[in-house]
Amino acid sequence: MTSVLLTGIAELVTNDPVHDGTPLGLVHDAAVVIQGHRVAWVGPRQQAPDADDARDLGGRAVLPGFVDSHSHLVFAGDRAAEFAARMSGESYAAGGIRTTVAATRAATDEQLIANVARLGAEMRRQGTTTVEVKSGYGLTVRDEARSLVIAGLITEETTFLGAHVVPPEYADDPAGYVELVTGPMLDAAAPHARWIDVFCERGAFDEDQARAILAAGGAQGLKGRLHANQLGPGPGVRLACELGLAAVDHCTFLEAADVTALAESGTVATLLPGVEFSTRSPYPDARGLVDAGVTVALASDCNPGSCYTSSMPLCVALAVREMRMTPGEAIWSATAGGARALGRDDVGVIAPGKRAHLTVLEAPSHVHLAYRPGVPLVAEVIA
Amino acid sequence: MTSVLLTGIAELVTNDPVHDGTPLGLVHDAAVVIQGHRVAWVGPRQQAPDADDARDLGGRAVLPGFVDSHSHLVFAGDRAAEFAARMSGESYAAGGIRTTVAATRAATDEQLIANVARLGAEMRRQGTTTVEVKSGYGLTVRDEARSLVIAGLITEETTFLGAHVVPPEYADDPAGYVELVTGPMLDAAAPHARWIDVFCERGAFDEDQARAILAAGGAQGLKGRLHANQLGPGPGVRLACELGLAAVDHCTFLEAADVTALAESGTVATLLPGVEFSTRSPYPDARGLVDAGVTVALASDCNPGSCYTSSMPLCVALAVREMRMTPGEAIWSATAGGARALGRDDVGVIAPGKRAHLTVLEAPSHVHLAYRPGVPLVAEVIA
Repeated sequence: MTSVLLTGIAELVTNDPVHDGTPLGLVHDAAVVIQGHRVAWVGPRQQAPDADDARDLGGRAVLPGFVDSHSHLVFAGDRAAEFAARMSGESYAAGGIRTTVAATRAATDEQLIANVARLGAEMRRQGTTTVEVKSGYGLTVRDEARSLVIAGLITEETTFLGAHVVPPEYADDPAGYVELVTGPMLDAAAPHARWIDVFCERGAFDEDQARAILAAGGAQGLKGRLHANQLGPGPGVRLACELGLAAVDHCTFLEAADVTALAESGTVATLLPGVEFSTRSPYPDARGLVDAGVTVALASDCNPGSCYTSSMPLCVALAVREMRMTPGEAIWSATAGGARALGRDDVGVIAPGKRAHLTVLEAPSHVHLAYRPGVPLVAEVIA
Repeated sequence: MTSVLLTGIAELVTNDPVHDGTPLGLVHDAAVVIQGHRVAWVGPRQQAPDADDARDLGGRAVLPGFVDSHSHLVFAGDRAAEFAARMSGESYAAGGIRTTVAATRAATDEQLIANVARLGAEMRRQGTTTVEVKSGYGLTVRDEARSLVIAGLITEETTFLGAHVVPPEYADDPAGYVELVTGPMLDAAAPHARWIDVFCERGAFDEDQARAILAAGGAQGLKGRLHANQLGPGPGVRLACELGLAAVDHCTFLEAADVTALAESGTVATLLPGVEFSTRSPYPDARGLVDAGVTVALASDCNPGSCYTSSMPLCVALAVREMRMTPGEAIWSATAGGARALGRDDVGVIAPGKRAHLTVLEAPSHVHLAYRPGVPLVAEVIA
């Protein structure tokens, strides 16, 4: 395997505390050696070993590729008109999901594949090298299974979200829908999914339903995660902690007991500030969570309803501006935090033996991702 | 001159009400004919005339190139550390400008030219086809003149802002600095500038000083514009209206009399929401201004201190999310509004005889610029 020595790295974010004693693990004037698909060496340029090839990155900042642990890329159509109406004062409700369900069921495989490929490429251009993709706009046995197969074309981190919302044909029989999700739909989905997720929220699924669905998924080898506490307080976050899930996502409306449960359980709180931006809602208290010792991840939630951004750099900028994370905390949460939310130790960090997923910025420091909001700063993605 | 017929335009924003009776002048399934540097024809595709060449834009939305009427691109260094400190709780003060003044004075011409070229290209990639660039980080006769010469390398819309802040060497003699600005510095700057601007704000220049500086500039053929009411209420907006200036910029802290003066005078209120984003400040009341009949422009204010974004798409998204403009109003203000703020009738509109400045989106509708915040949606810039 050919090795490549990367230099010209003004600032390297490794997320490996061995370098500077901080979580960000900064190295200035750094070098990285890549061998095959893995990192072979990381450190100061002047101590770098020889390699077969060499590249000078021109004095840029380099960080681990973003790990976007929450997205919904398998869908058809868009909801631009709903967005415009919401910005004129209408409030966001989970029911809007059904609009996309109808469009997704009507779409051909080719249309869904093209949309996933387009959004996956868009994410890559913005520095994302690992992405989780959920089903959840099919809500029939056939459409959930095909959504997961299509998600699997761009990622290994596929999540079965049959329990996204109760579809219209089960409006009068939500218990019957849970039976479908935990029965034939799960049977069809499980071979194509790594995770199972439930939207545990008023208007979607309650605690007992969530518990049943996660248990059924677990019995088929799927690991659990939850959407919870997005639109109001509720039992979802504490349930996730009780079950020891890898992550619980949204965490916008938390009570003190939720924060304590998160800190004690180690379940990652995944914050999705693009949602609050795009629904004009109050932001989660990232500052309070970090200060309480909770592990925080940042993710895009890219979906056509509540948040149609695919931009992890925007999430970082919003985390700093609106949620009072430091730029370093936000970068960590968008990389190492996302990796923890997916139970991964091979990404989100630049260290020997880890995957060679590097995002190169057109900037000298990671701070610029928050300092220069909206500017496409990703110069190159190495993965 | 060869003519080119552009088709495959799912939605065309013309800013010409002749098409649909609204300010945005939307045409669906549109065509545009370009001849040389000008637009020759605009309308529905099925009525398009023949042309020498043809191009299909693939079903995208097209709008006039953004007109960014307020930027400070001639500088050296950055203030990322100041930004990070501010996000940790320190407040923004105009005095930070002096940090950049010191770096700019110390820079070579080549360094300043490279920085302007870099940022100008970055703006272009994000859809900006007309940009105003100010001096104001030199604050000596030599450094202001060279800043304007360098600004003139990328735009005709150059603005002399010797009255940005009183430099340290005049800290005890602000009146002496105003004499310099209105005397030898103006003499050196005027041949290279179209506009003269004053930062009329507590901590910078007061009303009488602003009046004297604008009058001196006017005597040398420079048209006036103002920075005003950014950090608190003040006399700047009413002064701009009284003098009939093309635009007054920031307008964050307005009293009722300011709004009335803006509506009656026709002076454009240029809002710079990237500043409020990057300084964590309250946003101007764009909704109230539009409803009062004020002409509103949106601009980036790209500068290394209070707002280091060059992204007009971000400004549009912030205008919708934070200032309650509709997506259409925000697009108009970022194109036609900017043109009015610069007294230009040849840009900011797609109509026969106007400059052929077109921004093509990787999206089917202008709404996507707000609906998909942070995503680099500019597919191509034709200019």
